[in-house]
Amino acid sequence: MASGEFDLIARLVERLPPPGPRVRVGSGDDAAVTESAQAATATTVDAIVEGVHFTLPEFPLPAVGRKALAGALSDLAAMGAEPGEAYIALGAPEGLTEEDLLAVGDGLAEVAEREGVSVAGGDVTRAPVLSLAVTCVGHERPGIALVTRGGAQPGDAVAVTGELGGAAAALSLLADASGAPKKLGDETRRRLLARQLDPRPRLAAGLALAAGGANAMIDISDGLGADAGHLARASGVALVVELGHLPLAEGAAEVAGSEERARELAVAGGEDFELLVCLPPEGLENATKAVADAGYPLTRIGEATEGEPGTVSDTDGRRLESEGFDHMRGSRAGSG
Amino acid sequence: MASGEFDLIARLVERLPPPGPRVRVGSGDDAAVTESAQAATATTVDAIVEGVHFTLPEFPLPAVGRKALAGALSDLAAMGAEPGEAYIALGAPEGLTEEDLLAVGDGLAEVAEREGVSVAGGDVTRAPVLSLAVTCVGHERPGIALVTRGGAQPGDAVAVTGELGGAAAALSLLADASGAPKKLGDETRRRLLARQLDPRPRLAAGLALAAGGANAMIDISDGLGADAGHLARASGVALVVELGHLPLAEGAAEVAGSEERARELAVAGGEDFELLVCLPPEGLENATKAVADAGYPLTRIGEATEGEPGTVSDTDGRRLESEGFDHMRGSRAGSG
Repeated sequence: MASGEFDLIARLVERLPPPGPRVRVGSGDDAAVTESAQAATATTVDAIVEGVHFTLPEFPLPAVGRKALAGALSDLAAMGAEPGEAYIALGAPEGLTEEDLLAVGDGLAEVAEREGVSVAGGDVTRAPVLSLAVTCVGHERPGIALVTRGGAQPGDAVAVTGELGGAAAALSLLADASGAPKKLGDETRRRLLARQLDPRPRLAAGLALAAGGANAMIDISDGLGADAGHLARASGVALVVELGHLPLAEGAAEVAGSEERARELAVAGGEDFELLVCLPPEGLENATKAVADAGYPLTRIGEATEGEPGTVSDTDGRRLESEGFDHMRGSRAGSG
Repeated sequence: MASGEFDLIARLVERLPPPGPRVRVGSGDDAAVTESAQAATATTVDAIVEGVHFTLPEFPLPAVGRKALAGALSDLAAMGAEPGEAYIALGAPEGLTEEDLLAVGDGLAEVAEREGVSVAGGDVTRAPVLSLAVTCVGHERPGIALVTRGGAQPGDAVAVTGELGGAAAALSLLADASGAPKKLGDETRRRLLARQLDPRPRLAAGLALAAGGANAMIDISDGLGADAGHLARASGVALVVELGHLPLAEGAAEVAGSEERARELAVAGGEDFELLVCLPPEGLENATKAVADAGYPLTRIGEATEGEPGTVSDTDGRRLESEGFDHMRGSRAGSG
């Protein structure tokens, strides 16, 4: 299958958008060569595996490609980085045809095109199940320092972009299409499903928040509770979250059965790929306007305090940071 | 298992060498942040999968880690890049314990330490079998331009570092320990096995050859025939190889049964992770000295000609470039 694989790679590369100006040597050599005027880069790796992060045929193959690249780009969004290059390690099971793999590639190409990413290299190997490990490199934009998880200060406002709980609700819809509540409108249903099948990394918001004075950011891939916990620990602050202020995805309550259960999906469900940000309260108004320009809301959901470092609590003191999410999705424990 | 995974990552990171000066933010944030004085970087991704590139328990777990990182670094060697950062996506099957995964990490750490690589990030997910996708970033050393596959000129000498055929011979030894020829000495046997269990990326030779006027380089991961074919196609030249000049690994002929069959292993066997280089013949003497300083030979095995572009032939005109290697190892079809 060696020569077939080289053909496959050539066909995959054909479908990708042309590499951007930073790429001096793209796919097809031992390594890609990139050049950057900026000194600092942000690099992340994120893998998704069939049966762990998605199932077939519930996920159409292009959606697998979209999700793999969007998930990695979400990490760059959380750094306030400008997306640059992506490198894809594709594990291909024998049960998939070359056309199937090209359909995965179409999903990668769609996101790469939309987000301005150069897919500059990759590797294709046989594997027992479909899997994609995506490494993304982002670049510090001049004058906009990259933002880590570790800079939150007591007194900071805590805010999230977009809506929460939609990705977990969409998983329910995908797992049991016939069990979906009848009152869910077609458009609401479509938008919920898109949280799994076409997640949108909040790159524009990440840049706007980094430029607007964010002290700390993280993307919400493991659920608000767990990810807020990561940020709280890295920053050495406590976070207090007003659960009533969580911006719940439209339709999540219908799917979950109640608003309270939709809030549980938001806290523990993961994969919403929204950004959680801590910033000085006086910067919130401008940040909200800047994020709105990117097309989605920024909602204040709490504040950072001098409480027990590393903890996340609701206003009744219930702890949220260890809310696990221990089902087929697996954990996005990755970093860096 | 979410919290267990975060613990595992912390324990893995503990074992790694401390990140180098380029790493501003290492493992533990959404992305690693690196800074480089040089403008150009070389990036490659290389995945190895249990049952495809290695089998358990024939491969001790640290050897899996060593092989994964060494294979990716070999691509950087072929660019003449200075190794910089590595990012690891680890797929962990349920059958392996945390201690098992740490043993894989020990192998990664050993190579990272020896080669001066900062493991700056990673991702751990459940997967059906043990798999590692390794992204490595290398840096152009000031004054030593990165070398692609595409610059060979008719008249160039073709040379290889080290020895060939040893990795394929070692696979035979691993697959059938009892069937090994009795006359193989312990030390020879140990050195052959190391070609699989502790492969050494030729980073010092790659830098020396890049500095010494190499026109084109590639690492030999798919076998001399296939990889010479990649280089010949990228450069638009023909390569003629004198099979009698191939530097065969000591013991390969005993394992293969004859010298001729050992040459077949060298041409079609792959995973030797030596460098194939094209350079002007007048540079060969100095290049040979420079590579010898790194501790291994450089052997002239042929020349680049104006024959049919993309072809590789022996001196009898037999074509070598499509020699496949279609067994459990799978194809290292990756690039960039």
